[in-house]
Amino acid sequence: MSAPDEQELRAWAYLAAVAEPPCARLVALVDQYGVLDAARAVRERRMPDGYGELLVATEARCGSDTAAADLERCAEIGARLVTRDELDWPGWPLLPLDQADTAARGGGPLALWVRGTGSLVEFTGQAIAVVGSRAATSYGDYVAGKLGSELAAENWTVLSGGAYGIDGAAHRGALAAHGRTAAVLACGIDRDYPAGHAALLTEIARQGLVVTEYPPGTTAAKHRFLTRNRLVAALSAATVVVEAGRRSGAANTAAWARKLGRPLGAVPGAITSATSVGCHQMIADGQATLVADTAAVIALAEPDGHDTHQQSPPRRTDGLSPEQFRVIEALPARGGLRLDEVVFVSGLPTPTVRAALAGLEVAGLVDGDGGLWELA
Amino acid sequence: MSAPDEQELRAWAYLAAVAEPPCARLVALVDQYGVLDAARAVRERRMPDGYGELLVATEARCGSDTAAADLERCAEIGARLVTRDELDWPGWPLLPLDQADTAARGGGPLALWVRGTGSLVEFTGQAIAVVGSRAATSYGDYVAGKLGSELAAENWTVLSGGAYGIDGAAHRGALAAHGRTAAVLACGIDRDYPAGHAALLTEIARQGLVVTEYPPGTTAAKHRFLTRNRLVAALSAATVVVEAGRRSGAANTAAWARKLGRPLGAVPGAITSATSVGCHQMIADGQATLVADTAAVIALAEPDGHDTHQQSPPRRTDGLSPEQFRVIEALPARGGLRLDEVVFVSGLPTPTVRAALAGLEVAGLVDGDGGLWELA
Repeated sequence: MSAPDEQELRAWAYLAAVAEPPCARLVALVDQYGVLDAARAVRERRMPDGYGELLVATEARCGSDTAAADLERCAEIGARLVTRDELDWPGWPLLPLDQADTAARGGGPLALWVRGTGSLVEFTGQAIAVVGSRAATSYGDYVAGKLGSELAAENWTVLSGGAYGIDGAAHRGALAAHGRTAAVLACGIDRDYPAGHAALLTEIARQGLVVTEYPPGTTAAKHRFLTRNRLVAALSAATVVVEAGRRSGAANTAAWARKLGRPLGAVPGAITSATSVGCHQMIADGQATLVADTAAVIALAEPDGHDTHQQSPPRRTDGLSPEQFRVIEALPARGGLRLDEVVFVSGLPTPTVRAALAGLEVAGLVDGDGGLWELA
Repeated sequence: MSAPDEQELRAWAYLAAVAEPPCARLVALVDQYGVLDAARAVRERRMPDGYGELLVATEARCGSDTAAADLERCAEIGARLVTRDELDWPGWPLLPLDQADTAARGGGPLALWVRGTGSLVEFTGQAIAVVGSRAATSYGDYVAGKLGSELAAENWTVLSGGAYGIDGAAHRGALAAHGRTAAVLACGIDRDYPAGHAALLTEIARQGLVVTEYPPGTTAAKHRFLTRNRLVAALSAATVVVEAGRRSGAANTAAWARKLGRPLGAVPGAITSATSVGCHQMIADGQATLVADTAAVIALAEPDGHDTHQQSPPRRTDGLSPEQFRVIEALPARGGLRLDEVVFVSGLPTPTVRAALAGLEVAGLVDGDGGLWELA
C-alpha cells in the first residue's frame, strides 16, 4: 500500500495494456502473485494453474511492451498511473466490481490513468454520476448544468463521461460552481474524445480529474463506452439520468448502477420529448426514483438522510405530532378553512383536529381568527 | 328497484337538499327506513333511535321544502334526479364511499342530479378521471386534450370537474373525438361554473353527462370542491393527474383515489415547471404511477390487462343496492352457503341479507335451493 517503485510501475503499465479491460482473471493473477510475477508470467507465457485462459486474453499484445512509452506520454500531459497497490486507489467503491457475480461481465479495473492533481479517493469518496443523452435538448442541458452546479456547491463530485450533451453540461455546471468534477473516458488518457470537448477536458483535468482504464493511445470504441459506464456507476454513490431516449448509453450506466446496488435516479421531462422516454420508462418500471431537484438527488445518495457534508437548518415543523402534520397539510396556502372543513380535509376526528389546531396556534404556525383557520 | 313515483321523487329531492353532502347518516336513514319515512322523520323532527345527530345536520334546511321547485328547475334544463333506488344508480363504483372506513370523511351521495340523456351507470361503468391544475400550461393543456381524445376513442368515459385548465382540456379532447365525457360539478346542476365554461358544459350535457349531488341553485364553494372530488375519484376506474402544483385540488382528488383503492397515475413534466411539482411529488412518494401515454393510463385502469370495454356487455349486477352487492360478493364462485353463513361473510344483519337474497333471486342472480344459496 505504498507508491510502487519504478520496476513495479512498469509492470503495472505493461499489464494495464496487455489485455482489453475488463479482465477479471488478470486482476486475480496480480492479486494472488503480485504485479512483478504476474507481468513475468504473462510475458513469458507461463501461467500458474487455473490461469490458462489468460494466455488467450493476452496473446495479441504480450510481445509489445509499451509500458515505458505509455508512462512517458502520461507524464507529458500531467497524468499518472494509479494502481491497486496504492493508497489513492478507490478500492471501496470499486469493490462490487471485483465480486464474483459481476466479475463475469465486468470486473474491476487493474489500474487507472488519472489526469489532474486531485486525489482519486477523495474525488470518488463523495461523488454522484450525472449522465444522459448526447443529443440533449436545451431542457436537458439546463437541468444537467443546474444539477452539476448545485451538487458541486454541496461538495459532491460531479462524475460523468465527458460526452456531448448531458455529460458536458453537468461537468460545466460543476466547473462554473468552482466545485469538483471528474470525467471517466472510454479512450486513452492522452486522447480528447470527443474532439470538440478538448478544452473542456483540459479544464476538468485542471480543476478536477480525468480518469480512464485505457492506456495512452487507445481509441474510443463502442464496446469501450459500455465498459467505461461500469466505472462511472461504480465510482459514484448514486447515478442520475437527466435525459435518455428509448435506447441509450445512459440506460447502460443506469443498469450498472442497479447491478452494483447503487441508487438510481431519473429526471422526468415532458412526455412529448423523445429524450425523456428512457427516464420515464425507468421510473415507471420502478428501476429509478424520480428526482426533481438537487435535494432529491442528494437524498438518493444519502438514503439514511443524514447530512454528511452540511447540517440543514431545523425546520419550524420539526417535532410536530403526526396529527399536527396532517392538520397543517390540510390548510391551504392561501385563505382559511372552518373547523369542520379542516376535519373533512384532514380526515381526523373533530376533537383531534381541535387539539392539534390549538397546539399549532401556540407554536405560532397557524392563526384562527373569526372561525377560520389559516397558515401563519 | 324501479323508477320512483312522484311522491317518492319529491321525498328524494327534499332529502337531497336538506343536509349538506356528504351526510352518511342520512343515507343510512333512507336505506333503513325507505325514502318516504326518512323524509317524514326529518320534516317532523322525529328521528329513530341512533339517528339523533341528523336533527343537527338537517336543522338549518328542514323547514324549507324546495323539492318541487328543484325538480321543476331541473326539468327546464333537461336534467333529472337519479336516486339510489333506481336501476341507473352507479351503486358499484360508489360502494366504497358507503363503507364504514370512508363514511366518516366522505360517505356516498344520496342522489345525483344529472344533465344529459345518457345512462349514468353506462357512463361510469368504464370511466377514467383526468384532472389537474386550473392554471395549466400549454403543455398540460396539450397532454390533457390528447389523453381525453385518445381515451374517448378507446371507449372510455373521460370524467373530470369541468374547471378551467386541465379539466376543460380533457373534456374538450373527448368531445372532439366524439366520445363520452362527464363533468362532476361542485354546484347546482343549473349553475354554469365556471361561468366561462357555460358553452362547454352545455356541450358536455349534449354529448355526455353533467353530474352533481348539489341541488339546483347551490353555489360553488371551496369545501364543495373537496367533496365533489371524492365523486370524481369514486366514479372512475382510475385517476390521472396531468398537472398539479405543490398544493392543489387535483392532489385532493388523487388522495381520494388512493383512499378508495383506485389506481392513481400522474403525468410527468419539466422539473422547471411549477405545475408539475405535485405530479412529481406523487410519483416520487410512490403514491402515483408515472404515466407517459394513453396506453399506460389504460393499463392502470385495467391492471389485469384484459379489455373490459371491448368484451363486457352491460353487467347484470348494475343497479343493485349496496347490500345486494355485499351479499353477491359474499357468495363463493362455486358451491353454496347457508343463510347464516352469508350473514357471517357479508357482515350484514339477517333480515337485510334475507331481503337482499330474495331480491337477487327474483333478478335471477342467485339460486336458493335446499337451504343453500349460490350464484346463478
